[in-house]
Amino acid sequence: MTELGVVRRNIHRADRASVDKLAHFGVATVHEAMGRVGLMQPYMRPIYAGAQVSGAAVTVLLHPGDNWMMHVVAEQIEPGDVVVAAITAECTDGYFGDLLATSFKARGARALIIDAGVRDVKTLTEMGFPVWSKCISAKGTVKATLGSVNIPIVCAGALVNPGDAIVADDDGVVVVPRAWAEKTVAAAAAREASEGDKRAKLASGVLGLDMYKMREPLERAGLRYID
Amino acid sequence: MTELGVVRRNIHRADRASVDKLAHFGVATVHEAMGRVGLMQPYMRPIYAGAQVSGAAVTVLLHPGDNWMMHVVAEQIEPGDVVVAAITAECTDGYFGDLLATSFKARGARALIIDAGVRDVKTLTEMGFPVWSKCISAKGTVKATLGSVNIPIVCAGALVNPGDAIVADDDGVVVVPRAWAEKTVAAAAAREASEGDKRAKLASGVLGLDMYKMREPLERAGLRYID
Amino acid sequence: MTELGVVRRNIHRADRASVDKLAHFGVATVHEAMGRVGLMQPYMRPIYAGAQVSGAAVTVLLHPGDNWMMHVVAEQIEPGDVVVAAITAECTDGYFGDLLATSFKARGARALIIDAGVRDVKTLTEMGFPVWSKCISAKGTVKATLGSVNIPIVCAGALVNPGDAIVADDDGVVVVPRAWAEKTVAAAAAREASEGDKRAKLASGVLGLDMYKMREPLERAGLRYID
Amino acid sequence: MTELGVVRRNIHRADRASVDKLAHFGVATVHEAMGRVGLMQPYMRPIYAGAQVSGAAVTVLLHPGDNWMMHVVAEQIEPGDVVVAAITAECTDGYFGDLLATSFKARGARALIIDAGVRDVKTLTEMGFPVWSKCISAKGTVKATLGSVNIPIVCAGALVNPGDAIVADDDGVVVVPRAWAEKTVAAAAAREASEGDKRAKLASGVLGLDMYKMREPLERAGLRYID
Amino acid sequence: MTELGVVRRNIHRADRASVDKLAHFGVATVHEAMGRVGLMQPYMRPIYAGAQVSGAAVTVLLHPGDNWMMHVVAEQIEPGDVVVAAITAECTDGYFGDLLATSFKARGARALIIDAGVRDVKTLTEMGFPVWSKCISAKGTVKATLGSVNIPIVCAGALVNPGDAIVADDDGVVVVPRAWAEKTVAAAAAREASEGDKRAKLASGVLGLDMYKMREPLERAGLRYID
Amino acid sequence: MTELGVVRRNIHRADRASVDKLAHFGVATVHEAMGRVGLMQPYMRPIYAGAQVSGAAVTVLLHPGDNWMMHVVAEQIEPGDVVVAAITAECTDGYFGDLLATSFKARGARALIIDAGVRDVKTLTEMGFPVWSKCISAKGTVKATLGSVNIPIVCAGALVNPGDAIVADDDGVVVVPRAWAEKTVAAAAAREASEGDKRAKLASGVLGLDMYKMREPLERAGLRYID
Repeated sequence: MTELGVVRRNIHRADRASVDKLAHFGVATVHEAMGRVGLMQPYMRPIYAGAQVSGAAVTVLLHPGDNWMMHVVAEQIEPGDVVVAAITAECTDGYFGDLLATSFKARGARALIIDAGVRDVKTLTEMGFPVWSKCISAKGTVKATLGSVNIPIVCAGALVNPGDAIVADDDGVVVVPRAWAEKTVAAAAAREASEGDKRAKLASGVLGLDMYKMREPLERAGLRYID
Repeated sequence: MTELGVVRRNIHRADRASVDKLAHFGVATVHEAMGRVGLMQPYMRPIYAGAQVSGAAVTVLLHPGDNWMMHVVAEQIEPGDVVVAAITAECTDGYFGDLLATSFKARGARALIIDAGVRDVKTLTEMGFPVWSKCISAKGTVKATLGSVNIPIVCAGALVNPGDAIVADDDGVVVVPRAWAEKTVAAAAAREASEGDKRAKLASGVLGLDMYKMREPLERAGLRYID
Repeated sequence: MTELGVVRRNIHRADRASVDKLAHFGVATVHEAMGRVGLMQPYMRPIYAGAQVSGAAVTVLLHPGDNWMMHVVAEQIEPGDVVVAAITAECTDGYFGDLLATSFKARGARALIIDAGVRDVKTLTEMGFPVWSKCISAKGTVKATLGSVNIPIVCAGALVNPGDAIVADDDGVVVVPRAWAEKTVAAAAAREASEGDKRAKLASGVLGLDMYKMREPLERAGLRYID
Repeated sequence: MTELGVVRRNIHRADRASVDKLAHFGVATVHEAMGRVGLMQPYMRPIYAGAQVSGAAVTVLLHPGDNWMMHVVAEQIEPGDVVVAAITAECTDGYFGDLLATSFKARGARALIIDAGVRDVKTLTEMGFPVWSKCISAKGTVKATLGSVNIPIVCAGALVNPGDAIVADDDGVVVVPRAWAEKTVAAAAAREASEGDKRAKLASGVLGLDMYKMREPLERAGLRYID
Repeated sequence: MTELGVVRRNIHRADRASVDKLAHFGVATVHEAMGRVGLMQPYMRPIYAGAQVSGAAVTVLLHPGDNWMMHVVAEQIEPGDVVVAAITAECTDGYFGDLLATSFKARGARALIIDAGVRDVKTLTEMGFPVWSKCISAKGTVKATLGSVNIPIVCAGALVNPGDAIVADDDGVVVVPRAWAEKTVAAAAAREASEGDKRAKLASGVLGLDMYKMREPLERAGLRYID
Repeated sequence: MTELGVVRRNIHRADRASVDKLAHFGVATVHEAMGRVGLMQPYMRPIYAGAQVSGAAVTVLLHPGDNWMMHVVAEQIEPGDVVVAAITAECTDGYFGDLLATSFKARGARALIIDAGVRDVKTLTEMGFPVWSKCISAKGTVKATLGSVNIPIVCAGALVNPGDAIVADDDGVVVVPRAWAEKTVAAAAAREASEGDKRAKLASGVLGLDMYKMREPLERAGLRYID
């Protein structure tokens, strides 16, 4: 639950080394390594293809049509952070453009994840500042109402606590709770290691049916082949 | 309100020089310069990234599943125009493809804005004829029912009068009323001029909080910092 | 109607030569050649631009959140096939990623069409394995419930029988019934032949109004020109 | 196009007698009588079934998440008016509840049409104050930013000028331009008169095919009957 | 796949006695009895609560914005039929109102299922003629383009062949293939018989965990209880 | 963040007396009393109008298309509880019908809040067991995969911890954190007390502009009246 008008300055970020390693694995592998939880909804899409990042979450909660707190959160960014922004109600306005991106980048932010709209996407793409958002919209916002910074938020269906690890790529966005960062790295690495061998087998024509030994359980479940 | 079965041949286009200058500023800046009005809804997306155009609006109103009036509007295009198409009810059919694009281009049209679907997008991309649309759909249409050309229409939530200036880029589409074109150029230029300095400051690490002098109003509004 | 837990091994594929020719024409032309039927809904989008494929349909019906049958269908793929996947209820989970794509490709599949989500899209793009899907989602699935393979399915609003020809490109996906493949090739070729001449005329500035002799029927329908 | 921060006090309302007669005919008949134009999009739904109203439009444009102007528009209501509210961007917040309804009703308003959310719907239903809205939402709003009153607005895809006639019932909402109110009453009355006879014939088993003499045009269009 | 411009006059309807019995069981039970297949998508909603019907399907395929074929299908209705209407592309227009309902009712139709809009819903409710539709819309249609009657169609994601049994209630719409009608009645009756006993047990406080003997399989699957 | 396959048996419920009092105020008042936070998204709608309930949250997380955990959560219900169900990905299946409702009711549950579909709504309405859901769907589910009970979940955009207070009525659903229940009752009571007087003033024709003393701040913000 949220309290409005509050900025928390000291947050505990997930272990930096673990956070940094997570980008390598990508969203799908990290999500599987965590036990298939933590994903944001699939409407969250990158403004350009190919970016793959991880970082510690700095969170911000804003009002519909009001981006005042984006300037407040900028001050709380540390190098390697990812800003995660939620709105108190559904909104498609363009909360973020090239000026804010310049500021966020200067502070060391690696990306913005926002459950609303973003604009100046051509410039953001040229700057190489990636954003995952609900939509692209040039709609401007006002600066009139307080929200909060570094409180727990729900963004695109996922709970995000300040300091959690965020991983984002072309497949979407996943949240790794702060306390899980290290063990998730380990689980993702194990998963990745096992995939190389599987990939080679499948590429050679071996079927998943045989590699995963599915034929017997499928038959037991009642699968019938007909000609 | 609309009358069906009418083609207006003589329309007053926004001042050509002003219209042409608007493309440079882009949608977000023009929308802000106008006082944050005139945007089409964010579901209007370009079929390829990177196009940035402006032009005088030639409008057409069509029926669901019927693109007959696309051929009628083609004759009313003058070089530098942008065709804006609305449908009398929600429709996702593909009203426009490479043959019509060839015709529109030959007439001097710079783009199509359509609150429905478009097809042959690969060829349109190769031709460099940009389209902003609700969706991409190969669904063909019939030619059986009259609509109108160069009447006021509502396209994607925005009122468009024939001759209004249209600006479109990766951020969406904005409509500048004919009488506002010149002053909008001036306001956009002023806005752009002020942004260069701001961008430099933000890039150097100055915070928006300080540059915009927000700390005092935020405190007055009740913002509390906690550790 | 569908029976669950069945895999049909022997299906009659549309004539291979005809199927292969269909890719050349593209979705819009094939759909028109068939009499404007057979299209999947426009929410089906390619994961990367530029792919244009055709193939014989191998069909699979799956449960929400369960991709077990993807491994079963892999065994039924023959070179030149396109796998078409439907879910028994609306679902956005990521049923398919790079491992399955490796397996499908090794079996000779040309593409996947799926009325759900897909993941590992960066790798799939690098592999050049095209997918048309409802969305992109990293959400993993379980392997617990039987579906069926090579039964008639409804995918994105279109009926697909095993062995039908599938054509997919940047405009979407169209289904050509097995028995119609040859005559559709002929009709599409005729259509394409007539378009070259039309394109040249339109490019030279001839209006569709004149080329298609629309002025008289428009006048008869009551179209009025005003100044 | 809109100017923000303006309240127009003197508007010309459509002829009161005509406006009042329109409610009787209902939305579908009025829309047909006008030539099939003027409808708001079908997502606009009444909060309770059975209300059927007409009135002169008093318009208000608001910002996302901000209902300040609802209090400003209240003062401009005259008995027999219908308030029509648009938002400058997509928003689902609850802009209106039982207190504002009490005020609107005291001023003589007959209904609210709002392209956003409404709350306290149980009380509004008990009060008999009908609202057509995009959704129902308890989400509260702030009072911080100016909009405008009695300017032309686009509401749910329809252009509404202050003083236009509004008709709303279980089928949706239609806008009759001020200058068309009288002739629309006449056309709707003519249409209704002709329907009684048709209804009786159809009820007796006569087919529309014969009553409307469609058999010959259908055959000419190529319709084939097979057994 | 569909051929346009065709009316099939002689169709084989599912066994009338079986069709009539299906209404009693309702959609959820019939769908379960068939093995959890055959449902239309959940956006199909009744225009009023409480109707529960079954009938043999008479099918019609229409174009966006064109309801001409509704008059053609009327002639093919036999007492006890349910008309099922699909559109060749997404459309929300109001294809059906009180005049057509009067005609359909006079022919003996029990309901309309339409993957588009319907209007005059207040009158239809008073007449007691139930409709399941995608939306309610007053938008009128034209009569200009041929579709087909009594061909296989896809309606709201479900394949419907002429003569199939249709069951519709407050939970939605399900399609029972003609050949399955009798055995589905038997399976639904068996299912219903077993439910009475279960309901009594659950009402007395017995848990499903015990009644369905789920504790052991849950434990085997790894469920852990913590305090 | 969530761990799958866990059932927490001992949870701390919000103070019962406070929880029970919250139903009286309704969702809009409670949401305002909390500072405008805690609402679920507006797509959550009651299956019948008029229900107004509160209770302590018992939470359950399920997989797409799998309702196994509904039986597990039933055992954890205490009289006065409201079950809140989330799915690990978007899903519209019908997870809950009259048999489960019978069981939940026997256990003392007051309502179900589910971010998915529900079925047997006619029977549920007759039983007087209210459900707030994303949709109504007859689609059956399987029982194959573990979820969890009484862990923190995100339901329709809102974070719900086991034991939180839930309030639901025709305006939607709001979550009151366990620790806030008592003070929210107090704040809601204060708010309600002040509304009676306001309602009387507004009913007598006093404007909100005067009652809330808005004229001066509006003028200061730049509002201009024109004639």
